Amino acid sequence: MKITAAVVSIVLLVAAQNAFGQFPAEDVSRYAIKDFAFEHGQTLPSVVVAYATRGRLNAEKSNAVLLPSPYAADLHGYDALVGPGRALDPNKQFLILTGMFANGQSSSPSNTPAPHSGPDFPRVTIRDNVRAAHELVTQQLGITKLKAVVGYSMGAQQAYQWAVSYPEMVESIAVICGNAKQYPFGVIRLEGSIAALKADSAWNNGHYTLPPVKGLRAFALHYAAWSQSPASWPRDMLDGMSDQQVDQFLRSLEAPALGMDANNILSQAETWKRHNIGDTPGYIGNVEAALRAIKARVLLMPCRSDLYFPVADAEYEATILQNGELAVIESSTGHAAGGGADPQAIRFIDEKLIGLLK
Amino acid sequence: MKITAAVVSIVLLVAAQNAFGQFPAEDVSRYAIKDFAFEHGQTLPSVVVAYATRGRLNAEKSNAVLLPSPYAADLHGYDALVGPGRALDPNKQFLILTGMFANGQSSSPSNTPAPHSGPDFPRVTIRDNVRAAHELVTQQLGITKLKAVVGYSMGAQQAYQWAVSYPEMVESIAVICGNAKQYPFGVIRLEGSIAALKADSAWNNGHYTLPPVKGLRAFALHYAAWSQSPASWPRDMLDGMSDQQVDQFLRSLEAPALGMDANNILSQAETWKRHNIGDTPGYIGNVEAALRAIKARVLLMPCRSDLYFPVADAEYEATILQNGELAVIESSTGHAAGGGADPQAIRFIDEKLIGLLK
Repeated sequence: MKITAAVVSIVLLVAAQNAFGQFPAEDVSRYAIKDFAFEHGQTLPSVVVAYATRGRLNAEKSNAVLLPSPYAADLHGYDALVGPGRALDPNKQFLILTGMFANGQSSSPSNTPAPHSGPDFPRVTIRDNVRAAHELVTQQLGITKLKAVVGYSMGAQQAYQWAVSYPEMVESIAVICGNAKQYPFGVIRLEGSIAALKADSAWNNGHYTLPPVKGLRAFALHYAAWSQSPASWPRDMLDGMSDQQVDQFLRSLEAPALGMDANNILSQAETWKRHNIGDTPGYIGNVEAALRAIKARVLLMPCRSDLYFPVADAEYEATILQNGELAVIESSTGHAAGGGADPQAIRFIDEKLIGLLK
Repeated sequence: MKITAAVVSIVLLVAAQNAFGQFPAEDVSRYAIKDFAFEHGQTLPSVVVAYATRGRLNAEKSNAVLLPSPYAADLHGYDALVGPGRALDPNKQFLILTGMFANGQSSSPSNTPAPHSGPDFPRVTIRDNVRAAHELVTQQLGITKLKAVVGYSMGAQQAYQWAVSYPEMVESIAVICGNAKQYPFGVIRLEGSIAALKADSAWNNGHYTLPPVKGLRAFALHYAAWSQSPASWPRDMLDGMSDQQVDQFLRSLEAPALGMDANNILSQAETWKRHNIGDTPGYIGNVEAALRAIKARVLLMPCRSDLYFPVADAEYEATILQNGELAVIESSTGHAAGGGADPQAIRFIDEKLIGLLK
């Protein structure tokens, strides 16, 4: 049956994209910050930023590259881009991988004690994440310059925010399949995923005892369709399958979300949905003003077939940036191209990153 | 506030697309068929096909054009294309508008008595719809030739099926934002909408007493994002809105589904999902064999920015058809372009239809 290989590889891709696999336990570090005040007013007595490093900081402390985690990902979000001979070569760069709040490793609804657990976890912004990572990088790692912040998807939101929040500290950023702001189409798209999860009454406003399985399944199907592109699914893929087999295949697409914590992924979705570098103090909500102020070199890498970060939005941002370079990833694998779904896309990104890090 | 006009017009568009408005009651006719055997084995003692006509059949009976309803639509699905001076001019053509099974006017889960009501309504195929409409056209209206079948979206699936099921009867078809088969990407996309609705336990496997409101809302948000395109939503549309106002806007997008019957829209979604003209007897599931056999002139009109019927699939079909013409709708309004969202697109479609009907 011709479908098998395609189906398996695609299911694996979806899983990999949302990988909740772990680094060896001894390899994930946790940096604690006391009395962390979130942008929207809540303060936690202590938060943790999960991180890992690869390679060594050189004597000049000039080879640090930060890789902030994308949506629903642990510290493996950049595995496809890291390796010997690559731009992100641990033999040359000192790579710092950080986990976002609510990713299940850093402070999250799932791992924070009451009264801030679950749905009572503070509302998080991208700026909160960037500020926490800034403290990690400067206080814990003793680094005052980042050669680059390289970010994919929500990682790209963080990269952009770094360039706005800490202009003196960031030489360059790579924005892979992401934007400076979540534009309205993406807000509506994200709200679809949120509503699908919350439609399950087992979600119970976040006070579930057992996972809201039907909601998580619907959520996974949302991403199965959006995270890739039509061309990712061969036209004859389901040919010759019985109704039952098609159904089995559709159910297999739901698997990636079943291990996720609903409150964690909802928290991150809200963070994503509301992001705008223009909301940084001083820019009164104006994304263009914030874009214009960026001094770092910006490498913009949207993917041609990305269904939720359209190339047009990166083109728009490129026209406003002082020092932006647009390099479109010509892949038919959609948003997932930036996460490792397309080896050719990864090679292209790698080449552009080599240029950026030169 | 600059957003207001855009928001309102977009909400109206979404509403119009799923219009459940009514023709004047006296204007909708109902054709009954006894002992209707559905393709998948169930038989209803009686089914009804809701229809309306516009214009007059000429003496030669050579001016009949059939317009089968798209998804979740009543007989108003083609309002944007019909009118004096248009290709679909009631002064020249005899227009026959038919409602699909499960559209709430023709036999549907919502209007069929027990034991075939609600979730016990038979599984429906596009071929079932086409066979019922064929009986209406031939037996009730006494027509043996259709000048054209013009279909948008699921209407396009029906147009294609007409050309395969009744080749001697159909001179030409127009396939607007639709395909001969629901290819795998679309299957996955549709399953996302189905799962979002079913995640609501109020749905209760179709045995609801009150509407599954949360599921219907999630379903509407699914379509809000998919049925148009990113460019349909201006980048500054939500600027200056409070969180509450943004939320209010998102809730407004859910309104179109609240008047719908869940079992009706799920039934139609399954019909859509499983469509393949290759499943017509004689073609053993092979869509290419069925495409090759079509003798009618086929006008293929995908929209450049349609998120669920990609241009690539129409291009693929055009290479197989004997007599196919590809005319891409260059609109940025996505799938909705074929339903009236873009006046320029409607003019373009109209011009191409004038050519087809000449």
